[in-house]
Amino acid sequence: MGVNSKSSPKLFTDERAGAIYRTAAAMIYEKGFEATSMSAIAEAVNLTKPGLYYYVKGKKELLFDLMSFAMDLLDHEVVEPARPIVDAETRLRTIVHRHALLLTREPSPVGILIDETRSLTAAQRTAIERRKRAYFDLVRQTLQTLQDEKKMRPVDATVAAFSLLGMVMWISRWYTAGGRMPSEAVAENITEIAVGAVLHDHPPAGLDVPAATVRASVPV
Amino acid sequence: MGVNSKSSPKLFTDERAGAIYRTAAAMIYEKGFEATSMSAIAEAVNLTKPGLYYYVKGKKELLFDLMSFAMDLLDHEVVEPARPIVDAETRLRTIVHRHALLLTREPSPVGILIDETRSLTAAQRTAIERRKRAYFDLVRQTLQTLQDEKKMRPVDATVAAFSLLGMVMWISRWYTAGGRMPSEAVAENITEIAVGAVLHDHPPAGLDVPAATVRASVPV
Repeated sequence: MGVNSKSSPKLFTDERAGAIYRTAAAMIYEKGFEATSMSAIAEAVNLTKPGLYYYVKGKKELLFDLMSFAMDLLDHEVVEPARPIVDAETRLRTIVHRHALLLTREPSPVGILIDETRSLTAAQRTAIERRKRAYFDLVRQTLQTLQDEKKMRPVDATVAAFSLLGMVMWISRWYTAGGRMPSEAVAENITEIAVGAVLHDHPPAGLDVPAATVRASVPV
Repeated sequence: MGVNSKSSPKLFTDERAGAIYRTAAAMIYEKGFEATSMSAIAEAVNLTKPGLYYYVKGKKELLFDLMSFAMDLLDHEVVEPARPIVDAETRLRTIVHRHALLLTREPSPVGILIDETRSLTAAQRTAIERRKRAYFDLVRQTLQTLQDEKKMRPVDATVAAFSLLGMVMWISRWYTAGGRMPSEAVAENITEIAVGAVLHDHPPAGLDVPAATVRASVPV
């Protein structure tokens, strides 16, 4: 079977496949891709190795499917809700808040997305990098709009985009579900930190960009 | 020979050992620890495999030595210059600025420090985690002092400490030496972003903490 490069609807609808992929993601996230064998994954999900191969074509395909699944989650839970938001500050808050919540809920697939790209084939890596790039561009363009609106502190928009994404992606390194702080509070704190990182405390009075122009400049 | 768990002076003074370790770090950073063989490292540094074993005891020891070297660099270039600074805001700026510069100069060993901890033995991991923790505590205590001084925006000091470190560590993911922005400009931008992330644009007037108390509360 296998999941195509653009989306993994099966992982959202097939419970058994979803459970297998989540277990595999947790194991790869914990031990690393090279150190995780297909036999160990089969054992962990109570399948024979041939039984596992009914669900996945091979180890590299599994990794690629997991990363595609992570990108699907990101598109579905972060990019699609955020992209149509006209106000750039609200869009930025939505991106950071939703991405932070997703990471506290799904640390394993998204963690693999960060760490294991080098284990993909060149073609697979290109496909994943292209999707990551589209997400990065959304963040960068949102910051560029805020800069045009004179709401941004005097920092480079590209460095700021990488910094905000780094701050958010880092959550999967330190956040432990069931720790002292609920995920919603973590997401709220990160959002405040991210907004403070790039915007003036209070936007300067007398913006010289009329609201209508700002609205039109935002990609919807 | 081998390098003890606390420091790796040899890597600072023995040119040949330093060159071998840097090459190994770059290879492991590029391909991952599991996918990098001792034979490949020996070949890359023009040594026979026995020749390489004169410098390193084994593959896990090599990884541990590299991480110890990265922590030594961090202590030497960031922690030691920053710790005695009395003013917490200046200390925070120094930490972020120096750490960012170090990452643009030495991406490989510090990148491995982030990614490959799970390939260490339990004892090695504990030793490295303890040193990382000491660095985290310096950042967190600096933010706590800024909070006590009422200079900090209303965000959790622990979440903020992880966020700033994530933002800085992320540099090794995206910065390319020789790109459009020199490393000093990257470090300056990241410092502005980090300070904005946690501090008010302008500290509120009328601090109720007298300067002498602030001074005394800072660990020197």
